[in-house]
Amino acid sequence: MTDAELVTIPAGRGAAARLRAGQRVRVINTRGTQCVDTWAFVADDVSEFLSMEHSRSILEKIHFEPGDVLAPNRYAPLLEIVADTSPGGHDTLIAACTEEMYTRAGRPAGHANCADNLRAALAVLGVDARTTPAPWNLFMMAPVGAGGAIRFTRPTSAPGDYVELAALRDVIVAFSACPDDVYLTNGGDGTPTDAHFAVFDPARPS
Amino acid sequence: MTDAELVTIPAGRGAAARLRAGQRVRVINTRGTQCVDTWAFVADDVSEFLSMEHSRSILEKIHFEPGDVLAPNRYAPLLEIVADTSPGGHDTLIAACTEEMYTRAGRPAGHANCADNLRAALAVLGVDARTTPAPWNLFMMAPVGAGGAIRFTRPTSAPGDYVELAALRDVIVAFSACPDDVYLTNGGDGTPTDAHFAVFDPARPS
Repeated sequence: MTDAELVTIPAGRGAAARLRAGQRVRVINTRGTQCVDTWAFVADDVSEFLSMEHSRSILEKIHFEPGDVLAPNRYAPLLEIVADTSPGGHDTLIAACTEEMYTRAGRPAGHANCADNLRAALAVLGVDARTTPAPWNLFMMAPVGAGGAIRFTRPTSAPGDYVELAALRDVIVAFSACPDDVYLTNGGDGTPTDAHFAVFDPARPS
Repeated sequence: MTDAELVTIPAGRGAAARLRAGQRVRVINTRGTQCVDTWAFVADDVSEFLSMEHSRSILEKIHFEPGDVLAPNRYAPLLEIVADTSPGGHDTLIAACTEEMYTRAGRPAGHANCADNLRAALAVLGVDARTTPAPWNLFMMAPVGAGGAIRFTRPTSAPGDYVELAALRDVIVAFSACPDDVYLTNGGDGTPTDAHFAVFDPARPS
């Protein structure tokens, strides 16, 4: 990966890219405080997509880590986690934010949100997924305590921490630098920040 | 509720019904060992449906209990849990079983599964939801331990235990008496059993 391959996920907005099988994507928490909602769709049939509930079912855990193979809603392996420099524990339980979530929290109508960001990012690639799958919320901390209570806490990542994924099939990946300025998702200071990603071919074995 | 209102969810199969706002549905684990995958859709627009990830987000917990109001993917309150005679802890994390899940587990092609049961049960009502939302797995035990590991354990309900839901809007509810004969979902003896449900109007206050 080179710096030239870095793509900005603008603060509070989305971005998407195509990966061929074998390529990798590195998702970088540039400032360390940003939650990045992450989705993946099978390139030639976007009704098959990365599924948190199928991945939890197969992996028998609620948090994923390097070596784990993530599953879509039809089970055939989709992505492998090949690196994670953050403390991990990325949320798999919480819905993508929507305009309704912000109006419920007292924000004015028209608030940017991850569901709309997904739709817009896919539209740039000419894709309409017609659904908002439950996202993999990279760098978002929503740990489950005794009795099943979910607590929302600040991100624990450092600036530059990243998660790297290998595409096992041709996929479209989409990201949203979550626009949340209400909860602790983005560190609690109400300021979404830019994040970055890079798509690259892994170095060939020599 | 009277016995005359009981509808069978045949062992390993599905069933669905319409509820008007204000009506209730009682979902009965007749033999005590049966997982009942449960879905709900807004009657006049099935692209709005009960969402485990939205309900977890709002309720800030992974297991729901009486008094909780469950949310669809557009947040406006959909169902209220009004009673639960079981020990609770109904799973919200695990995907509906599909034919692929069973072939992965070594079963022959064509195994009955909750995703197909949902589709068939809705078709009886003339509805095509075009999606399989993550189900609310009534009576299924998949507790989350320290570190986020999911364990699959036997159901803890007694014969006749039930969960009762109040419809806050006109909805279509669908159930599948899970055909799982591989894992411990249905008690581990490989025998799905009939479950039942009843739709009724609550007694008027006198």
